[in-house]
Amino acid sequence: MTAQRTILKTKVGIVGGGPAGLMLSHLLAKNGIENIVVEARDHETIHNTHRAGILEAQAVKMLVESGVGGRVLSDGYEHSGIDLRFNGESHPLDFTGLVGATVTLYAQNEVFVDLAAARKRDGGDVRFSSEVTALMDLETETPKFRFTDAAGTELEVHCDILVGADGSRSFCRRQIPDTNRQDFKIEYPFAWFGILAKAPKSARELIYANSPHGFALISQRSETVQRMYFQCDPNENVDDWSEDRIWSELQRRVDGPDGFTLKTGNIFDKTVLKFRSFVREPLSHGRLFLIGDAGHTVPPTGAKGLNLAFADVLVLFEALDSFYATKNDALLRGYSDKALRRVWKAQNFSYWMTSMLHTPVNADPFMARRALGELDTVASSRYGQQYLAESYTGWPHS
Amino acid sequence: MTAQRTILKTKVGIVGGGPAGLMLSHLLAKNGIENIVVEARDHETIHNTHRAGILEAQAVKMLVESGVGGRVLSDGYEHSGIDLRFNGESHPLDFTGLVGATVTLYAQNEVFVDLAAARKRDGGDVRFSSEVTALMDLETETPKFRFTDAAGTELEVHCDILVGADGSRSFCRRQIPDTNRQDFKIEYPFAWFGILAKAPKSARELIYANSPHGFALISQRSETVQRMYFQCDPNENVDDWSEDRIWSELQRRVDGPDGFTLKTGNIFDKTVLKFRSFVREPLSHGRLFLIGDAGHTVPPTGAKGLNLAFADVLVLFEALDSFYATKNDALLRGYSDKALRRVWKAQNFSYWMTSMLHTPVNADPFMARRALGELDTVASSRYGQQYLAESYTGWPHS
Repeated sequence: MTAQRTILKTKVGIVGGGPAGLMLSHLLAKNGIENIVVEARDHETIHNTHRAGILEAQAVKMLVESGVGGRVLSDGYEHSGIDLRFNGESHPLDFTGLVGATVTLYAQNEVFVDLAAARKRDGGDVRFSSEVTALMDLETETPKFRFTDAAGTELEVHCDILVGADGSRSFCRRQIPDTNRQDFKIEYPFAWFGILAKAPKSARELIYANSPHGFALISQRSETVQRMYFQCDPNENVDDWSEDRIWSELQRRVDGPDGFTLKTGNIFDKTVLKFRSFVREPLSHGRLFLIGDAGHTVPPTGAKGLNLAFADVLVLFEALDSFYATKNDALLRGYSDKALRRVWKAQNFSYWMTSMLHTPVNADPFMARRALGELDTVASSRYGQQYLAESYTGWPHS
Repeated sequence: MTAQRTILKTKVGIVGGGPAGLMLSHLLAKNGIENIVVEARDHETIHNTHRAGILEAQAVKMLVESGVGGRVLSDGYEHSGIDLRFNGESHPLDFTGLVGATVTLYAQNEVFVDLAAARKRDGGDVRFSSEVTALMDLETETPKFRFTDAAGTELEVHCDILVGADGSRSFCRRQIPDTNRQDFKIEYPFAWFGILAKAPKSARELIYANSPHGFALISQRSETVQRMYFQCDPNENVDDWSEDRIWSELQRRVDGPDGFTLKTGNIFDKTVLKFRSFVREPLSHGRLFLIGDAGHTVPPTGAKGLNLAFADVLVLFEALDSFYATKNDALLRGYSDKALRRVWKAQNFSYWMTSMLHTPVNADPFMARRALGELDTVASSRYGQQYLAESYTGWPHS
């Protein structure tokens, strides 16, 4: 009945060619571990999907030490702090002075471009526009998956290890049977209205603002292009928002006695970013391992998404490296627990930043005041500043 | 129509003779500022109402420096840390090493006894069993109140300043008109089941335990009497709980692979402690000033109730001292804002400890995991430990 399919054999089959899948592929290849990456979208689509990125020093280090750090070093913007703004006042946190660490602003789609280029340069087997249609034999020593490539040909990959790196709507995750697993999630009653604007920087560092009108994030992309967000209704329609309306909404969220004024300019991109918190436990099933958004989603407030994906990559890479070096799968069996420990710390940090900075519609007045009390506690204490700074810049990889 | 009433004239009229009212009275008297304290309950009732107490170093200092510190120093138990217990594992926080501070276990009713003795010794005018029935002329320069004393005689106090120190169900607070004020509050879906037991200490430090069965606090009162609590339904009936049932409930909340076992003994006191968070804004109206529980209530998890009351006392005392020294009421007018700043930090800390350590019935599974992620973040980071330790031992009085 079934037509003869081409069968590709490899060690590690990776479903998903975003930053997480490509970084794993890249690290494995450098250690001589053969792998194939299959990605549903084409290179241009991923490249052109604007996605902000705040990289922990350790994520930058992973890029640089594996030889993919040229552009992040030259084009990324190193930031040594943020500004917590509440009650109309600025409270700068100096990460370098507090915890000796920085973060780097570098868009996630640029990380993708760099990794895709490195895989191409090194002769990696990365197939774009190729949709995975089935996973098979996950509980055996030869898991398999089937995909249709850009030319419409059906192929099958036979491997030792299958990795689901296919993002928050992960096909791989959905193939895991219902038994012995649990999904944890919360929805938020708001979203982010994000813009890109041709304007100079409004401030030297990113501003995270709690205001009676809701949260705003005054971020940056370059010297001439700025990225900003303000808390909005999840069903907000971007077409209802003129430039003037957007700027006055952003401005009133950073208003204060210091007269801080945003530098405005032409807005050329508007999107509504819905957000939620999600965790799948465990992050593995048989020989299938989930990394990054396929296993967990964080709201953008803590800027942990890509960093957490890279942390997963590192844990799984070390486990795979040990597996191929020793044939011992102890680290692979420990992957889920080890990765989840950091995931829950990041989930908590993201939830904390979100609840402290946002004001839900019909907010409980006690909780709104409490959030201001929390911001005051953090901003007026060196220990509080350090606690936040350490989480923001990233806990040590262990 | 009105019978002739005895009129007492004083500078500061204090309604409420608990620790807050008596401490203010004591400090004022030491600086020669005449005052009268009127308290509805009798001395014995307050003395015999068991109330736990964890005093910040600054509260101990206020007692000691004002000459009321003899017993707190000899009978109080200085603690240099706590144990955060979760996932069945102990995580000791060494406050001394982390932030150079300690707390002292000393029951609130003993603080009352010490302050009442000091006022008596110093010839203070403190009237127990005297119920305040009316406040008058709050918005004038001579506020007044009326009370019925222990003998049934009606008296009236005319003063410059009226202080409401009459606890969480404050009569004074309820006399403030509805305009220009706001109450903030939240209820919790659980309470604490508290016991006193004749037993040796189970551990050197207090244990704050997050468990799948709910929170437990293993506290202490002396070498031979222990105080413990476990999270329960707010409508729990203490009569439904035998000693065996209580001990097994407490034990399962501290169970862990380390085999930690509670030392049990005869339980001689059982109570259900309902708790809520409440703040009145502002803390003043005309010449009436609210201090302590009359203005704000915190859940017991952060042990901030008495400490916050003493912080209010200090701010108000300094304002009154300045008012009588200079006739300038600037500090009095600033009392509410200054006191509220610390109140909201303490409200946040209490809420934080509560939400991190308790598991509500029908807890959202994400939020329960998140709380464990938060405990892990705090306990595995020196900055996190310091942030918690500083809040627990008390921010500097400013």
